[in-house]
Amino acid sequence: MEILTIGIAGGTGSGKTTITRRILSEFGRDVAVLHHDSYYKAHDNMPFEERCRLNYDHPDAFDNELFLRHLRALRRGERAESPVYDYSIHNRTKETRTIRPARVLLVEGILIFADRRLCEEMDIKLFVDADADERILRRITRDMRDRGRSLESITNQYLSTVKPMHERFVEPSKRRADLIIPRGGRNTVALEMVLSRIRGFLAASAPGQKA
Amino acid sequence: MEILTIGIAGGTGSGKTTITRRILSEFGRDVAVLHHDSYYKAHDNMPFEERCRLNYDHPDAFDNELFLRHLRALRRGERAESPVYDYSIHNRTKETRTIRPARVLLVEGILIFADRRLCEEMDIKLFVDADADERILRRITRDMRDRGRSLESITNQYLSTVKPMHERFVEPSKRRADLIIPRGGRNTVALEMVLSRIRGFLAASAPGQKA
Repeated sequence: MEILTIGIAGGTGSGKTTITRRILSEFGRDVAVLHHDSYYKAHDNMPFEERCRLNYDHPDAFDNELFLRHLRALRRGERAESPVYDYSIHNRTKETRTIRPARVLLVEGILIFADRRLCEEMDIKLFVDADADERILRRITRDMRDRGRSLESITNQYLSTVKPMHERFVEPSKRRADLIIPRGGRNTVALEMVLSRIRGFLAASAPGQKA
Repeated sequence: MEILTIGIAGGTGSGKTTITRRILSEFGRDVAVLHHDSYYKAHDNMPFEERCRLNYDHPDAFDNELFLRHLRALRRGERAESPVYDYSIHNRTKETRTIRPARVLLVEGILIFADRRLCEEMDIKLFVDADADERILRRITRDMRDRGRSLESITNQYLSTVKPMHERFVEPSKRRADLIIPRGGRNTVALEMVLSRIRGFLAASAPGQKA
Protein backbone atom coordinates (compact mmCIF):
# COMPACT_ATOMS: atom_id res chain seq x y z
CA MET A 1 0.00 0.00 0.00
CA GLU A 2 1.44 3.35 -1.07
CA ILE A 3 0.88 5.99 1.62
CA LEU A 4 0.83 9.78 1.25
CA THR A 5 1.96 11.50 4.45
CA ILE A 6 0.83 15.10 4.92
CA GLY A 7 2.09 17.24 7.80
CA ILE A 8 -0.22 20.00 9.00
CA ALA A 9 1.54 22.49 11.28
CA GLY A 10 0.83 26.05 12.45
CA GLY A 11 0.50 28.09 15.61
CA THR A 12 -2.26 27.81 18.19
CA GLY A 13 -5.61 28.85 16.72
CA SER A 14 -4.31 28.86 13.14
CA GLY A 15 -6.91 26.46 11.77
CA LYS A 16 -5.04 23.12 11.66
CA THR A 17 -8.02 21.26 13.12
CA THR A 18 -10.47 22.77 10.63
CA ILE A 19 -8.33 21.64 7.71
CA THR A 20 -7.77 18.19 9.21
CA ARG A 21 -11.54 17.77 9.72
CA ARG A 22 -12.37 18.86 6.18
CA ILE A 23 -9.92 16.30 4.76
CA LEU A 24 -11.39 13.61 7.03
CA SER A 25 -14.96 14.44 6.07
CA GLU A 26 -14.05 14.26 2.37
CA PHE A 27 -12.04 11.03 2.36
CA GLY A 28 -13.21 9.25 5.52
CA ARG A 29 -11.70 5.80 5.89
CA ASP A 30 -8.86 6.54 3.48
CA VAL A 31 -7.43 8.91 6.08
CA ALA A 32 -5.59 8.25 9.36
CA VAL A 33 -4.65 11.10 11.71
CA LEU A 34 -1.71 11.21 14.09
CA HIS A 35 -1.99 14.06 16.62
CA HIS A 36 1.28 15.31 18.07
CA ASP A 37 -0.46 16.62 21.19
CA SER A 38 -1.28 13.08 22.26
CA TYR A 39 2.46 12.55 22.64
CA TYR A 40 3.34 14.86 25.51
CA LYS A 41 5.96 13.10 27.62
CA ALA A 42 4.74 10.89 30.44
CA HIS A 43 5.79 12.12 33.90
CA ASP A 44 4.62 9.36 36.18
CA ASN A 45 7.25 10.02 38.83
CA MET A 46 6.79 13.78 39.02
CA PRO A 47 4.40 15.38 41.53
CA PHE A 48 1.35 17.19 40.09
CA GLU A 49 2.58 20.60 41.26
CA GLU A 50 5.81 20.13 39.36
CA ARG A 51 4.02 18.88 36.23
CA CYS A 52 1.96 22.09 36.27
CA ARG A 53 5.09 24.17 36.03
CA LEU A 54 6.51 22.45 32.92
CA ASN A 55 6.64 24.35 29.63
CA TYR A 56 4.25 22.47 27.35
CA ASP A 57 4.88 24.82 24.45
CA HIS A 58 8.55 23.83 24.10
CA PRO A 59 9.52 21.06 21.64
CA ASP A 60 11.11 19.10 24.52
CA ALA A 61 7.67 18.58 26.07
CA PHE A 62 6.97 15.94 23.42
CA ASP A 63 7.98 12.30 23.29
CA ASN A 64 9.23 12.49 19.72
CA GLU A 65 10.94 9.08 19.94
CA LEU A 66 7.58 7.36 20.43
CA PHE A 67 5.89 9.69 17.95
CA LEU A 68 8.47 8.89 15.30
CA ARG A 69 8.11 5.14 15.93
CA HIS A 70 4.35 5.37 15.46
CA LEU A 71 4.66 7.62 12.42
CA ARG A 72 7.03 5.14 10.77
CA ALA A 73 4.78 2.19 11.65
CA LEU A 74 1.74 3.86 10.06
CA ARG A 75 3.81 4.68 6.97
CA ARG A 76 4.71 0.99 6.69
CA GLY A 77 1.00 0.16 6.83
CA GLU A 78 1.06 -1.03 10.45
CA ARG A 79 -1.16 0.03 13.36
CA ALA A 80 -0.04 2.34 16.13
CA GLU A 81 -1.22 2.47 19.73
CA SER A 82 -1.38 6.21 20.37
CA PRO A 83 -1.10 7.38 23.97
CA VAL A 84 -4.09 9.20 25.44
CA TYR A 85 -3.08 12.35 27.27
CA ASP A 86 -5.13 13.92 30.05
CA TYR A 87 -4.65 17.69 30.23
CA SER A 88 -6.41 17.94 33.59
CA ILE A 89 -3.70 15.88 35.32
CA HIS A 90 -0.87 16.91 32.94
CA ASN A 91 0.01 13.29 32.32
CA ARG A 92 -0.43 10.36 30.01
CA THR A 93 -3.25 8.00 30.94
CA LYS A 94 -2.95 4.20 31.00
CA GLU A 95 -5.22 3.93 27.95
CA THR A 96 -4.17 3.90 24.33
CA ARG A 97 -6.10 4.53 21.12
CA THR A 98 -5.53 2.35 18.08
CA ILE A 99 -4.75 4.20 14.88
CA ARG A 100 -5.32 2.06 11.82
CA PRO A 101 -3.14 2.71 8.78
CA ALA A 102 -4.76 4.37 5.77
CA ARG A 103 -3.57 5.48 2.36
CA VAL A 104 -3.48 9.11 3.48
CA LEU A 105 -1.75 9.83 6.78
CA LEU A 106 -2.27 13.27 8.33
CA VAL A 107 0.28 14.31 10.93
CA GLU A 108 -0.98 17.29 12.88
CA GLY A 109 0.62 19.51 15.50
CA ILE A 110 1.99 22.93 16.33
CA LEU A 111 5.63 21.84 16.54
CA ILE A 112 5.92 18.94 14.10
CA PHE A 113 8.16 20.89 11.69
CA ALA A 114 10.52 21.85 14.52
CA ASP A 115 12.06 18.34 14.45
CA ARG A 116 13.88 17.56 11.23
CA ARG A 117 13.42 13.79 11.70
CA LEU A 118 9.64 14.22 11.63
CA CYS A 119 9.86 16.42 8.53
CA GLU A 120 11.77 13.70 6.72
CA GLU A 121 8.78 11.36 7.12
CA MET A 122 6.36 13.74 5.38
CA ASP A 123 5.68 13.90 1.66
CA ILE A 124 3.86 17.23 1.89
CA LYS A 125 4.34 19.82 4.62
CA LEU A 126 1.52 22.35 5.00
CA PHE A 127 1.88 25.33 7.33
CA VAL A 128 -1.45 26.89 8.27
CA ASP A 129 -0.88 30.56 8.91
CA ALA A 130 -2.95 33.29 10.51
CA ASP A 131 -2.22 36.60 12.20
CA ALA A 132 -1.29 36.36 15.88
CA ASP A 133 -4.29 38.47 16.95
CA GLU A 134 -6.76 36.23 15.14
CA ARG A 135 -5.06 33.15 16.55
CA ILE A 136 -5.25 34.31 20.17
CA LEU A 137 -8.92 35.26 19.70
CA ARG A 138 -9.69 31.72 18.55
CA ARG A 139 -7.66 30.25 21.41
CA ILE A 140 -9.53 32.34 23.98
CA THR A 141 -12.91 31.26 22.62
CA ARG A 142 -11.88 27.60 22.53
CA ASP A 143 -10.22 27.47 25.94
CA MET A 144 -13.06 29.30 27.71
CA ARG A 145 -15.71 27.11 26.03
CA ASP A 146 -14.04 23.67 25.97
CA ARG A 147 -11.67 23.81 28.92
CA GLY A 148 -13.51 26.12 31.31
CA ARG A 149 -10.49 28.37 31.69
CA SER A 150 -10.49 32.01 32.75
CA LEU A 151 -9.35 34.83 30.49
CA GLU A 152 -6.64 35.68 33.02
CA SER A 153 -5.19 32.17 33.01
CA ILE A 154 -5.28 32.01 29.20
CA THR A 155 -3.57 35.41 28.97
CA ASN A 156 -0.86 34.46 31.47
CA GLN A 157 -0.02 31.20 29.71
CA TYR A 158 -0.11 32.88 26.31
CA LEU A 159 2.33 35.62 27.27
CA SER A 160 4.63 33.45 29.39
CA THR A 161 5.10 30.41 27.12
CA VAL A 162 2.80 30.17 24.06
CA LYS A 163 3.95 33.39 22.39
CA PRO A 164 7.69 33.14 23.17
CA MET A 165 7.82 29.49 22.07
CA HIS A 166 5.87 30.37 18.91
CA GLU A 167 8.45 32.99 18.00
CA ARG A 168 11.37 30.75 18.90
CA PHE A 169 10.27 27.44 17.40
CA VAL A 170 6.99 27.57 15.44
CA GLU A 171 7.61 30.61 13.25
CA PRO A 172 11.14 29.47 12.21
CA SER A 173 9.82 25.96 11.43
CA LYS A 174 7.60 27.56 8.75
CA ARG A 175 10.73 27.66 6.58
CA ARG A 176 10.51 23.90 6.25
CA ALA A 177 6.97 24.01 4.86
CA ASP A 178 6.25 23.17 1.22
CA LEU A 179 3.12 25.31 1.20
CA ILE A 180 1.82 28.07 3.42
CA ILE A 181 -1.94 28.42 3.79
CA PRO A 182 -2.89 31.94 4.86
CA ARG A 183 -6.17 32.76 6.61
CA GLY A 184 -6.17 29.26 8.12
CA GLY A 185 -9.34 27.25 8.10
CA ARG A 186 -11.41 29.81 6.18
CA ASN A 187 -9.26 29.49 3.06
CA THR A 188 -11.45 27.33 0.82
CA VAL A 189 -9.30 27.87 -2.29
CA ALA A 190 -6.25 26.40 -0.57
CA LEU A 191 -8.30 23.59 0.94
CA GLU A 192 -9.64 22.67 -2.51
CA MET A 193 -6.06 22.48 -3.78
CA VAL A 194 -5.12 20.08 -0.97
CA LEU A 195 -8.25 17.96 -1.54
CA SER A 196 -7.43 17.86 -5.26
CA ARG A 197 -3.92 16.59 -4.56
CA ILE A 198 -5.28 13.84 -2.30
CA ARG A 199 -7.98 12.91 -4.82
CA GLY A 200 -5.32 12.59 -7.52
CA PHE A 201 -3.15 10.43 -5.26
CA LEU A 202 -6.03 8.13 -4.29
CA ALA A 203 -7.10 7.71 -7.92
CA ALA A 204 -3.54 6.98 -9.08
CA SER A 205 -2.74 4.60 -6.23
CA ALA A 206 -6.09 2.80 -6.22
CA PRO A 207 -5.75 -1.01 -6.37
CA GLY A 208 -5.41 -2.03 -10.00
CA GLN A 209 -4.27 1.46 -11.11
CA LYS A 210 -0.74 2.36 -11.95
CA ALA A 211 0.65 5.02 -9.64
CA MET B 1 -16.04 26.59 -21.91
CA GLU B 2 -15.33 26.73 -18.19
CA ILE B 3 -12.05 28.53 -17.48
CA LEU B 4 -9.81 28.29 -14.41
CA THR B 5 -7.88 31.51 -13.82
CA ILE B 6 -4.71 31.23 -11.76
CA GLY B 7 -2.76 34.29 -10.66
CA ILE B 8 0.99 33.84 -10.10
CA ALA B 9 2.56 36.77 -8.26
CA GLY B 10 5.78 37.28 -6.30
CA GLY B 11 8.77 39.59 -6.16
CA THR B 12 11.53 39.85 -8.74
CA GLY B 13 13.54 36.63 -8.95
CA SER B 14 11.03 34.67 -6.85
CA GLY B 15 10.46 31.91 -9.41
CA LYS B 16 7.18 32.94 -11.08
CA THR B 17 8.52 32.16 -14.54
CA THR B 18 9.77 28.71 -13.53
CA ILE B 19 6.35 27.78 -12.19
CA THR B 20 4.57 29.21 -15.22
CA ARG B 21 6.86 27.24 -17.56
CA ARG B 22 6.34 23.99 -15.68
CA ILE B 23 2.57 24.37 -15.91
CA LEU B 24 2.86 25.17 -19.63
CA SER B 25 5.10 22.19 -20.30
CA GLU B 26 2.66 19.87 -18.50
CA PHE B 27 -0.61 21.05 -20.05
CA GLY B 28 0.51 22.75 -23.27
CA ARG B 29 -2.40 23.91 -25.39
CA ASP B 30 -4.84 23.84 -22.47
CA VAL B 31 -2.97 26.82 -20.99
CA ALA B 32 -2.94 30.50 -21.97
CA VAL B 33 -0.60 32.98 -20.26
CA LEU B 34 -1.20 36.67 -19.73
CA HIS B 35 2.00 38.53 -18.68
CA HIS B 36 1.47 41.73 -16.72
CA ASP B 37 4.84 43.10 -17.81
CA SER B 38 3.64 43.34 -21.40
CA TYR B 39 1.20 45.96 -20.17
CA TYR B 40 3.49 48.80 -19.13
CA LYS B 41 1.81 52.05 -20.10
CA ALA B 42 2.51 53.44 -23.56
CA HIS B 43 4.30 56.81 -23.48
CA ASP B 44 4.38 57.79 -27.14
CA ASN B 45 4.43 61.52 -26.44
CA MET B 46 7.17 61.44 -23.80
CA PRO B 47 10.85 61.91 -24.71
CA PHE B 48 13.18 58.91 -24.18
CA GLU B 49 15.12 60.68 -21.41
CA GLU B 50 11.95 61.22 -19.46
CA ARG B 51 10.76 57.64 -20.01
CA CYS B 52 14.04 56.42 -18.53
CA ARG B 53 13.30 58.26 -15.31
CA LEU B 54 9.88 56.70 -14.70
CA ASN B 55 9.41 54.26 -11.83
CA TYR B 56 8.60 50.95 -13.52
CA ASP B 57 8.30 49.13 -10.21
CA HIS B 58 5.26 51.15 -9.08
CA PRO B 59 1.73 49.81 -9.77
CA ASP B 60 0.93 53.01 -11.70
CA ALA B 61 3.44 52.03 -14.39
CA PHE B 62 0.94 49.49 -15.69
CA ASP B 63 -2.03 49.95 -18.00
CA ASN B 64 -4.38 47.97 -15.79
CA GLU B 65 -7.47 49.14 -17.71
CA LEU B 66 -6.25 47.39 -20.85
CA PHE B 67 -4.94 44.43 -18.84
CA LEU B 68 -8.31 43.98 -17.15
CA ARG B 69 -10.14 44.17 -20.50
CA HIS B 70 -7.92 41.44 -21.93
CA LEU B 71 -8.16 39.31 -18.79
CA ARG B 72 -11.95 39.48 -18.92
CA ALA B 73 -12.01 38.70 -22.64
CA LEU B 74 -9.86 35.58 -22.14
CA ARG B 75 -12.10 34.49 -19.27
CA ARG B 76 -15.10 34.76 -21.60
CA GLY B 77 -13.28 32.53 -24.08
CA GLU B 78 -12.32 35.35 -26.44
CA ARG B 79 -8.89 36.23 -27.86
CA ALA B 80 -6.81 39.14 -26.67
CA GLU B 81 -4.26 41.20 -28.59
CA SER B 82 -1.52 41.67 -26.01
CA PRO B 83 0.79 44.65 -26.44
CA VAL B 84 4.46 43.96 -27.04
CA TYR B 85 6.70 46.07 -24.86
CA ASP B 86 10.28 46.98 -25.76
CA TYR B 87 12.43 47.50 -22.67
CA SER B 88 15.28 49.00 -24.69
CA ILE B 89 13.16 52.02 -25.69
CA HIS B 90 10.94 51.97 -22.56
CA ASN B 91 7.83 51.98 -24.70
CA ARG B 92 5.14 49.83 -26.25
CA THR B 93 5.84 48.74 -29.83
CA LYS B 94 3.31 48.90 -32.65
CA GLU B 95 3.06 45.11 -32.72
CA THR B 96 0.66 42.94 -30.75
CA ARG B 97 0.70 39.26 -29.88
CA THR B 98 -2.49 37.21 -30.08
CA ILE B 99 -3.33 35.25 -26.95
CA ARG B 100 -5.81 32.47 -27.66
CA PRO B 101 -8.20 31.49 -24.87
CA ALA B 102 -7.62 28.16 -23.14
CA ARG B 103 -9.27 26.28 -20.29
CA VAL B 104 -6.53 27.29 -17.90
CA LEU B 105 -5.54 30.95 -17.86
CA LEU B 106 -2.33 31.89 -16.06
CA VAL B 107 -1.98 35.53 -15.08
CA GLU B 108 1.60 36.30 -14.17
CA GLY B 109 3.27 39.40 -12.73
CA ILE B 110 4.98 40.98 -9.75
CA LEU B 111 2.17 43.40 -8.94
CA ILE B 112 -1.01 41.63 -10.07
CA PHE B 113 -2.31 41.20 -6.50
CA ALA B 114 -1.81 44.91 -5.78
CA ASP B 115 -4.98 45.76 -7.73
CA ARG B 116 -8.13 44.38 -6.17
CA ARG B 117 -9.98 44.39 -9.50
CA LEU B 118 -7.43 41.97 -10.94
CA CYS B 119 -7.68 39.74 -7.87
CA GLU B 120 -11.42 39.48 -8.35
CA GLU B 121 -10.86 37.88 -11.76
CA MET B 122 -8.71 35.05 -10.35
CA ASP B 123 -9.99 31.72 -9.04
CA ILE B 124 -6.67 30.82 -7.42
CA LYS B 125 -4.04 33.31 -6.28
CA LEU B 126 -0.53 31.88 -5.82
CA PHE B 127 2.24 33.96 -4.29
CA VAL B 128 5.70 32.63 -5.05
CA ASP B 129 7.97 33.56 -2.18
CA ALA B 130 11.72 33.54 -1.69
CA ASP B 131 14.15 35.39 0.55
CA ALA B 132 15.19 38.83 -0.69
CA ASP B 133 18.87 37.83 -0.92
CA GLU B 134 18.11 34.81 -3.11
CA ARG B 135 15.82 36.91 -5.27
CA ILE B 136 18.40 39.65 -5.93
CA LEU B 137 21.03 36.99 -6.74
CA ARG B 138 18.73 35.55 -9.40
CA ARG B 139 17.92 39.00 -10.74
CA ILE B 140 21.62 39.88 -11.06
CA THR B 141 22.35 36.67 -12.96
CA ARG B 142 19.37 37.17 -15.28
CA ASP B 143 19.93 40.88 -15.98
CA MET B 144 23.67 40.49 -16.62
CA ARG B 145 23.11 37.49 -18.90
CA ASP B 146 19.90 38.42 -20.75
CA ARG B 147 19.95 42.19 -20.72
CA GLY B 148 23.68 42.93 -20.77
CA ARG B 149 23.43 45.17 -17.72
CA SER B 150 26.22 46.07 -15.31
CA LEU B 151 26.21 45.08 -11.66
CA GLU B 152 26.29 48.76 -10.73
CA SER B 153 23.19 49.61 -12.78
CA ILE B 154 21.30 46.58 -11.39
CA THR B 155 22.29 47.55 -7.84
CA ASN B 156 21.23 51.17 -8.29
CA GLN B 157 17.83 50.28 -9.71
CA TYR B 158 17.28 47.61 -7.07
CA LEU B 159 17.98 49.94 -4.16
CA SER B 160 16.22 52.99 -5.61
CA THR B 161 12.94 51.46 -6.84
CA VAL B 162 12.73 47.64 -6.87
CA LYS B 163 13.25 47.12 -3.14
CA PRO B 164 11.16 50.07 -1.85
CA MET B 165 8.27 49.23 -4.20
CA HIS B 166 8.51 45.58 -3.16
CA GLU B 167 8.14 46.53 0.49
CA ARG B 168 5.38 49.03 -0.22
CA PHE B 169 3.26 47.10 -2.72
CA VAL B 170 4.39 43.52 -3.38
CA GLU B 171 4.87 42.26 0.17
CA PRO B 172 1.50 43.65 1.39
CA SER B 173 -0.26 42.14 -1.65
CA LYS B 174 0.81 38.71 -0.38
CA ARG B 175 -2.08 38.99 2.08
CA ARG B 176 -4.47 38.53 -0.82
CA ALA B 177 -2.90 35.22 -1.86
CA ASP B 178 -4.71 31.93 -1.38
CA LEU B 179 -1.48 29.98 -1.19
CA ILE B 180 2.11 30.95 -0.58
CA ILE B 181 4.81 28.87 -2.26
CA PRO B 182 8.12 29.17 -0.41
CA ARG B 183 11.48 28.48 -2.07
CA GLY B 184 10.02 29.60 -5.39
CA GLY B 185 10.69 27.55 -8.48
CA ARG B 186 12.64 24.81 -6.69
CA ASN B 187 9.62 23.73 -4.66
CA THR B 188 8.53 20.58 -6.46
CA VAL B 189 6.06 19.51 -3.76
CA ALA B 190 4.09 22.74 -4.13
CA LEU B 191 4.31 22.56 -7.91
CA GLU B 192 2.90 19.03 -7.87
CA MET B 193 -0.02 20.29 -5.78
CA VAL B 194 -0.77 23.01 -8.35
CA LEU B 195 -0.45 20.55 -11.25
CA SER B 196 -2.79 18.18 -9.43
CA ARG B 197 -5.41 20.91 -9.02
CA ILE B 198 -5.22 21.76 -12.74
CA ARG B 199 -5.34 18.08 -13.72
CA GLY B 200 -8.49 17.66 -11.61
CA PHE B 201 -10.08 20.72 -13.15
CA LEU B 202 -9.29 19.62 -16.71
CA ALA B 203 -10.65 16.13 -16.07
CA ALA B 204 -13.85 17.44 -14.46
CA SER B 205 -14.47 20.11 -17.09
CA ALA B 206 -13.56 17.97 -20.10
CA PRO B 207 -16.23 17.99 -22.82
CA GLY B 208 -18.85 15.39 -21.92
CA GLN B 209 -17.87 15.35 -18.23
CA LYS B 210 -19.86 16.98 -15.53
CA ALA B 211 -17.88 19.64 -13.66
